[in-house]
Amino acid sequence: MSRNEEAPLEIERKFLVRKLPDGLTSYPASDIAQGYLVSLEDGLQVRLRKSGERYLLTYKRGTGNVREEREVELTAEQFDALWPATEGKRLAKTRYEIPFGGRVVEIDVYHEKHEGLVVAEVEFDAEEAAKDFQPPDWLGADVTGDPRYSNQLLAS
Amino acid sequence: MSRNEEAPLEIERKFLVRKLPDGLTSYPASDIAQGYLVSLEDGLQVRLRKSGERYLLTYKRGTGNVREEREVELTAEQFDALWPATEGKRLAKTRYEIPFGGRVVEIDVYHEKHEGLVVAEVEFDAEEAAKDFQPPDWLGADVTGDPRYSNQLLAS
Repeated sequence: MSRNEEAPLEIERKFLVRKLPDGLTSYPASDIAQGYLVSLEDGLQVRLRKSGERYLLTYKRGTGNVREEREVELTAEQFDALWPATEGKRLAKTRYEIPFGGRVVEIDVYHEKHEGLVVAEVEFDAEEAAKDFQPPDWLGADVTGDPRYSNQLLAS
Repeated sequence: MSRNEEAPLEIERKFLVRKLPDGLTSYPASDIAQGYLVSLEDGLQVRLRKSGERYLLTYKRGTGNVREEREVELTAEQFDALWPATEGKRLAKTRYEIPFGGRVVEIDVYHEKHEGLVVAEVEFDAEEAAKDFQPPDWLGADVTGDPRYSNQLLAS
């Protein structure tokens, strides 16, 4: 996700989902468990994520559709040593990857206490591309930066 | 430093140094560079440390002489990917390890903007041992928990 070593940025937009695309379960999917070592209102976060057999530690700073993001892959042992510190700040979701117009729409279907919530994210290389993106008609309102749909808040 | 997998704790006391022990440079020493991904007033921190050729990521929570602490060793590549995010929140020190009464007194000699500052730390297995510890006469005031001498503040 980081494309620039000097100031790696995450540029993304987030949408509600009006209607799940047909054949959702035929698209690539991964079960994600994530928890926060740190998660602050100003957007500063240190996140642990297990996606399938892949373990990640991600540092993010800032809010809105452009944020600083630095991510490293962890070993299972490193992940296991830090994971207990995320207790009470965790969430679980299934992420489906839907190709659309040369991009990938990630549909996150939440589980456990957020069962029923579905949110979609699209990542971009540049702010201009994010601004110009025309969502498919099965996506709903743009909720980029809306704190109600931030994973940080959902995990608290 | 973590002795219990369930709730790993760091139990330590911190002292000023009245007089450096004789032959300081003959003791084991390491050059430490550390920076903070996160460093909050309530004691929550995520720290990166390079000590010699060893790279560490440490999560701490709480204040005073007993804190939750979880630490993992990083590869140089992992460290390098996260280190830029600590810009402006870094410090450098040389740590000397002085055996004393079956324990190790760590003397930290700070560099760069804190040149001249010297602080000592002693770690313990249990709070009782920390309380009972009789410091050598070359140590000065107990400054455990004093925010003026917290590495977090010194790095800001």
